[in-house]
Amino acid sequence: MIDYKLLEALATVLEHGGFERAGDALGLSQSAVSQRIRTLEIRLGQPVLVRSPELRATPAGQRLLNHVQQVQLLERDLATSLPTLTEPSSRLRIAINADSLATWWAEAIGRFCQEEGLLLDLVIEDQDVGLRRMREGDVAACLCSSPQPVAGARCMAMGTMTYLPLATPDYVARHFPDGLTEESLRHAPAIIFGPNDQLQHRFLAGVGFRSSFPHHRCPSSEGFVKMALAGLGYGMIPEIQASRELSAGTLVSIAPGHHLDVPLYWHFWRHGGGTMERMTQALKRTRILQR
Amino acid sequence: MIDYKLLEALATVLEHGGFERAGDALGLSQSAVSQRIRTLEIRLGQPVLVRSPELRATPAGQRLLNHVQQVQLLERDLATSLPTLTEPSSRLRIAINADSLATWWAEAIGRFCQEEGLLLDLVIEDQDVGLRRMREGDVAACLCSSPQPVAGARCMAMGTMTYLPLATPDYVARHFPDGLTEESLRHAPAIIFGPNDQLQHRFLAGVGFRSSFPHHRCPSSEGFVKMALAGLGYGMIPEIQASRELSAGTLVSIAPGHHLDVPLYWHFWRHGGGTMERMTQALKRTRILQR
Repeated sequence: MIDYKLLEALATVLEHGGFERAGDALGLSQSAVSQRIRTLEIRLGQPVLVRSPELRATPAGQRLLNHVQQVQLLERDLATSLPTLTEPSSRLRIAINADSLATWWAEAIGRFCQEEGLLLDLVIEDQDVGLRRMREGDVAACLCSSPQPVAGARCMAMGTMTYLPLATPDYVARHFPDGLTEESLRHAPAIIFGPNDQLQHRFLAGVGFRSSFPHHRCPSSEGFVKMALAGLGYGMIPEIQASRELSAGTLVSIAPGHHLDVPLYWHFWRHGGGTMERMTQALKRTRILQR
Repeated sequence: MIDYKLLEALATVLEHGGFERAGDALGLSQSAVSQRIRTLEIRLGQPVLVRSPELRATPAGQRLLNHVQQVQLLERDLATSLPTLTEPSSRLRIAINADSLATWWAEAIGRFCQEEGLLLDLVIEDQDVGLRRMREGDVAACLCSSPQPVAGARCMAMGTMTYLPLATPDYVARHFPDGLTEESLRHAPAIIFGPNDQLQHRFLAGVGFRSSFPHHRCPSSEGFVKMALAGLGYGMIPEIQASRELSAGTLVSIAPGHHLDVPLYWHFWRHGGGTMERMTQALKRTRILQR
């Protein structure tokens, strides 16, 4: 069998982003961790890590990482019947879109994680990067808006999140005194999440506007709402995230009646074992999203 | 003089993360953008971009980027006296820590950006990466907790953010029925932001606990609060972010009387021109942080 001490060292170095931290996590010296990685590379006949510009796995290292994470997931199942055999503290790494994490995720998954004593290692990624990390074995599951299948994984439709184009009433009075005109949209600053965020463009195309428009970039869900509240721009915000502001009237739609529904999909390893199955069931039961 | 069309193409390709998108932003075809980059590389005698594994600037490209962004900042000053000469929509790229963006930033800077018609391009980075991007000229300013000076930049102390160790009352009753004992801390799941987040370790060292502890990782400020509210763990949360939950009693301190103060520093280009000066003044006036 493979020497899993070596694979564990690899996974820990990548998870903690360095040899010294990996040593701390494993209770080993930094040089002992390096030695394990070297041994692994000698046995494999090729490098598993690239050291610069930043520490990451080689394609061979990624395949090993994929493997060891699947094994760790399966070990969790074993731990329920043989609790003394295995370490209980392995973390499940999941790629998730920022807006889900900022809104419904914790409520949907909280009880399940408490009951199972499961620790999460969440990484925020847009759908393309999230699915790539899934293919590379770097994450065990990915929550995103793409139904594009990943080899070896299953995909479950989770429902949709509704986005509304929101701004302060003062912003609307200032920038859209005559409603959403071509001229006003060309000058009113929007807020977008990042270069891959197409929600704003889709909304504007929906109201018949296809030119370029000024925009801030704010890669934080909560920062996004705060920027809208501070009158910096209008932006597409999940309805469930702005419910309080909508009730209080501190944010209003700049185009009442218009919204965008974004579907969400849960991609998870087919051979992720019982923990992944039960987590998927827990997510299936959530009533927060619209089906 | 340098042909700024070429440098603008470089900056736009990097900002938008691709040639096609840069073309859209500049109103050019993709091949026209590629041609400009090629011309730049021929004149320079070396590459300015690395295409894989991801698009990024070479060291020479970074120096050009630094230069063109400083020029764009200076152009903003010119635009106030000669408004018809320049494009008004250049964005100011700033590296910022996630908790500031999720809490006080928009309120502190909102009016200033509105008055100046300034657009922001915010990137969330921890202090090491933020200061490196500042040195490389990729961002014009950096808000972080390190006072380490950057060559060519000034540094202003912004005050401190107070962090409290918070969880639900139910979580405290479940995991700390006898207070914070060595045994309970060894098993109670914490929430940390990411591998560089040392707040939790500092808090635990402050109460005399230095062993390892189970933890979730959640790289989202708002997700962090939601996970604490869902009973998944305890974590260090900015007091200003949890004020509503603290008043309502939905989050409580697991160690009343304990807190951590994290200083914040604003690093900005010395030759960033009047816009940067006035922005710094606006930040100086904010009363949200403790001085």
